[in-house]
Amino acid sequence: MKVTVIGLGPGGGADLTGRARAALEACDLIVGYTAYIDLVRADFPQKETLSTGMRREVDRCRAAVEAARTGRDVAVVCSGDSGVYGMAGLIYEVAQEYDPIEIEVVPGITAACGGAAVLGAPLTHDFAVVSLSDLLTPWEKIEKRLTAAAQADFVLCLYNPASRSRPDYLRRACDILLSAGKDPATVCGTVRNIGRAGEEAALLTLGELRDTKVDMFTTVFVGNSQTKVIGGKMVTPRGYLQRGE
Amino acid sequence: MKVTVIGLGPGGGADLTGRARAALEACDLIVGYTAYIDLVRADFPQKETLSTGMRREVDRCRAAVEAARTGRDVAVVCSGDSGVYGMAGLIYEVAQEYDPIEIEVVPGITAACGGAAVLGAPLTHDFAVVSLSDLLTPWEKIEKRLTAAAQADFVLCLYNPASRSRPDYLRRACDILLSAGKDPATVCGTVRNIGRAGEEAALLTLGELRDTKVDMFTTVFVGNSQTKVIGGKMVTPRGYLQRGE
Repeated sequence: MKVTVIGLGPGGGADLTGRARAALEACDLIVGYTAYIDLVRADFPQKETLSTGMRREVDRCRAAVEAARTGRDVAVVCSGDSGVYGMAGLIYEVAQEYDPIEIEVVPGITAACGGAAVLGAPLTHDFAVVSLSDLLTPWEKIEKRLTAAAQADFVLCLYNPASRSRPDYLRRACDILLSAGKDPATVCGTVRNIGRAGEEAALLTLGELRDTKVDMFTTVFVGNSQTKVIGGKMVTPRGYLQRGE
Repeated sequence: MKVTVIGLGPGGGADLTGRARAALEACDLIVGYTAYIDLVRADFPQKETLSTGMRREVDRCRAAVEAARTGRDVAVVCSGDSGVYGMAGLIYEVAQEYDPIEIEVVPGITAACGGAAVLGAPLTHDFAVVSLSDLLTPWEKIEKRLTAAAQADFVLCLYNPASRSRPDYLRRACDILLSAGKDPATVCGTVRNIGRAGEEAALLTLGELRDTKVDMFTTVFVGNSQTKVIGGKMVTPRGYLQRGE
């Protein structure tokens, strides 16, 4: 009767909100990408699950909507938030092809917030989130957004900074940011496996980031002109102390 | 001995993550802005609390750090996320003035994600988060960021879109976006009191948003060129269906 699109947070488990946990407990069927089903199975071992592989997003959403139409309460799970590059949008698009069903979106901690908490406080001022994956977005559009974000001094959070088929995309992105005028000394950070076993974080400069290899499990943060390192953490001041309160 | 900066999510309660709830249970003292202390007091009635009024952010962080230095475990609570315009950055800055203490940041659902879930799925593609408050940021910088975000076709999420002393800032922001080339028909949304009693949402065009009054409890979303209304919800397609899978 209903599809609930649920953000699990970066690592599932302790990152789940009470609302997400209640929705998972109440559902009849959990649908998701194999790796995310694995994240919830430990906490909900008795639930029926339906997992599909990478790049089968449309099939997955159709299966969820069709199961809901047979009278079941279906949870579609996403890593991080359900909306930020998540399945919520596609569920609405796919559901249009059928008679109306009820759809609810339950937010989760997205990698921008989860990763920022590991690094310190890089997002205390205006920021932009950009995915470097050009599977669904023309590279020219990504390049334009990176340039605009750099010129307007946004803090940047980069999702999907690399993959096996895109090993050099982070370097390309850093070169665009440097060409747009960002200082090579800009404070940057990387976080891998946020909230999961093997979580690791590093602080480095934009110049160093350009020559750093990252993988698809990594989220990258590029500071604004005010971002600094305090006690080994990446901090973007909001300006309270500068106001001289 | 320790300060934990905790994001409560937009409404506290069901939006709390398991990690945030455990940190609140473990602490000796909860410090925060009066309204946020009220959000947690119902769930943790036995905890000692210390609340300070609006614009007392530096005092609040100093009080938290000083209490931690006396051997207490202190939780500093923020609405939404602890990092996104939250207290995490200021805690790191203030703590520098003292001998080192342990600081941990626990993320929460920020209004961008919480509000997006109410509206549908506006953040399924690259987005920028901008605060319209010029208390701590020169208006010229805000204007530059709005223009850059519009020209690069980011979805925009606007925090602090108005207040009693800034009643016309949303109109000013809309005029900047329109001047930067955004279509007046761009799909927009507003959400007020996300996750709290009296939650209300509206969809409208950018042209209509310009003439809409909002208050400080409202978060505003401005779509990109692809954002559309599906079944009364605001949806930014990622491009899966367009790929023709």
